[in-house]
Amino acid sequence: MEFEVKKTSGKARVGVLKLPHGVVRTPVFMPVGTNANVKLLTPRDLEEAGAEIVLSNTFHLMLKPGVEIIRLHDGLHKFMGWKKPILTDSGGFQVFSLPKLKIDDEGVTFKSPIDGSKVFLSPEISMEVQIALGSDICMAFDHCPPPDADYEVVKEATERTYRWALRSKEAFKTENQVLFGIVQGGVYPDLRKKSALQITSIGFDGYAIGGLSIGEERSLTLEMTEITVEYLPEDRPRYFMGGGSPELILELVDRGVDMFDSVFPTRIARHGTALTWKGRLNLKASYNKRSLDPVDEQCGCYTCKNFTRSYIHHLIDRGEVLGQILLSLHNVSFMISFMDEVRRSIEEGTFREFKGKMIDVYSSGGVSV
Amino acid sequence: MEFEVKKTSGKARVGVLKLPHGVVRTPVFMPVGTNANVKLLTPRDLEEAGAEIVLSNTFHLMLKPGVEIIRLHDGLHKFMGWKKPILTDSGGFQVFSLPKLKIDDEGVTFKSPIDGSKVFLSPEISMEVQIALGSDICMAFDHCPPPDADYEVVKEATERTYRWALRSKEAFKTENQVLFGIVQGGVYPDLRKKSALQITSIGFDGYAIGGLSIGEERSLTLEMTEITVEYLPEDRPRYFMGGGSPELILELVDRGVDMFDSVFPTRIARHGTALTWKGRLNLKASYNKRSLDPVDEQCGCYTCKNFTRSYIHHLIDRGEVLGQILLSLHNVSFMISFMDEVRRSIEEGTFREFKGKMIDVYSSGGVSV
Repeated sequence: MEFEVKKTSGKARVGVLKLPHGVVRTPVFMPVGTNANVKLLTPRDLEEAGAEIVLSNTFHLMLKPGVEIIRLHDGLHKFMGWKKPILTDSGGFQVFSLPKLKIDDEGVTFKSPIDGSKVFLSPEISMEVQIALGSDICMAFDHCPPPDADYEVVKEATERTYRWALRSKEAFKTENQVLFGIVQGGVYPDLRKKSALQITSIGFDGYAIGGLSIGEERSLTLEMTEITVEYLPEDRPRYFMGGGSPELILELVDRGVDMFDSVFPTRIARHGTALTWKGRLNLKASYNKRSLDPVDEQCGCYTCKNFTRSYIHHLIDRGEVLGQILLSLHNVSFMISFMDEVRRSIEEGTFREFKGKMIDVYSSGGVSV
Repeated sequence: MEFEVKKTSGKARVGVLKLPHGVVRTPVFMPVGTNANVKLLTPRDLEEAGAEIVLSNTFHLMLKPGVEIIRLHDGLHKFMGWKKPILTDSGGFQVFSLPKLKIDDEGVTFKSPIDGSKVFLSPEISMEVQIALGSDICMAFDHCPPPDADYEVVKEATERTYRWALRSKEAFKTENQVLFGIVQGGVYPDLRKKSALQITSIGFDGYAIGGLSIGEERSLTLEMTEITVEYLPEDRPRYFMGGGSPELILELVDRGVDMFDSVFPTRIARHGTALTWKGRLNLKASYNKRSLDPVDEQCGCYTCKNFTRSYIHHLIDRGEVLGQILLSLHNVSFMISFMDEVRRSIEEGTFREFKGKMIDVYSSGGVSV
């Protein structure tokens, strides 16, 4: 892996990340493909939208189809028909989000959300699975505590995250894949700092900011990110896990973050909402029933070039999934174009103006025209 | 409209149908897009699959989005983003398939399946709507009786179909669109003959065989088709409404039919079944869990070129709609390729061999390899 920061504007930075399956320009948005697919989109839809990297979930893939099936395909790339880079999470987020039967230093025993069976995950198992998946970027196995956890609980999770990061690195014996460490620390500044120092002391190819955007106040999200970034090396990519609205991305880019992922653009698409350069647009709303406008006049995606809001309103109204498909395609295209503009504004030294303009647009509610 | 029969093999024939929005090679399979979309597929998916014409439903479009919205778009082509020919049915089939409040010579009053409101449809209204839709091929408004209807009921419906055909033609004042008449007559040979003579006496651009493949025995479907075709002119296209399995198409092509439509390939795709050159393939079946084969080795569609059966099995297993999308794309591609082979075998004088081989394949159940 090579990573080079090409240009900065304040803390915001434009970089180039060279990975085994291709080059990723940062700041980058990564669409999420939990079950080895980005919902409703084919790999060529994603390529056309301009996606340079997608994220998938180790825990889910372990359960179904299981690592054996993906090994049969020589990895996740061939399984899902995606030729560009893939980042996989480690399962650490599921420590926060799924029912657990037992957590100790050895690892976590989950109750499978699919069949209720016991599933054990440890740093070693997470690495083994991610190596089998063949992800370009693998994530260390971490312990992500809930946002309202007490100091002592978070402290323990943070220390465990450090021990698990050491074990993750030790177990990560592979070529042509890279490993990122994850900083935890909840919403406690001293734990964030300590975690950042611990994780960077191990030495990873990149660093993730974990355990945020999971329900805490937005001001804390930003404050914790700032503290964390302060202790991350300049020459390594920084990845904020699980945050991907335009507003949040702008705030985080402004604080030096390079990589983002979220199910948000595809999830809201399935609920009839588009992201546009004028804000969010609710295609279900009756004011779109007669609109001959595209979803977004400035967008060059397949959806915007070929269909009216009226048509998409009709599809959604009739429960036709094609409406959700067309909006998913648009929203991913929009996020990629949005990141293009983020990078361009950093390169041109106008990031703050761009940020201010877009946050105004997005904080003023949805567009109605 | 121009129609030319280029080659025959027995009663089977290859023709070329020139329509305002493009050329259609017959025998042709028309994917069905009831609500102004072929479920889960974009127009470019359909073009890539090789579709030359699609069918949509007047009755459904009248209700939603309503003809006013489609007029705003200057017709159905622009509304749904499909540039090639469109055939619309007349609403006559809904006389058979939906709850009716009243049928008399004036027309039919339906209970809207959307909101329960009263909807009136007559030959004049059907023509007005189809003219507004801008369909390349419009269908006369007919009265399709149920397959188990008594002779007297069918006789009355057949006579009404004749009167409505006269009124349809009278009301069809438009350019750049053509009108097909529909032969009814149920499963009664004398009524079939009479209807064919009546409808052809009016003079239409093409002729449809209606009221079949709606629950009657297969032998009756074929017998009634044979009788009907006997009284249809050689130089006009013949369209069998609502039948589209490979087996049925082969039998009907062999009896001189040129055009077919069915929701069948896209519907079974959504239920996890693929059509292949070796028969039907159930992607849900556990024997596909580890299969690295494509859905169909002989198929060149996007799905078959990029994904394994194992991957599609996984998507369906996880409830990921992408599995249904990929199978819909394949099944439409398959049907188009299948019709290519039907035409080629007619041109080469080997249609009967092709028919025999494919009927063997399809009557022997699903493939397991």
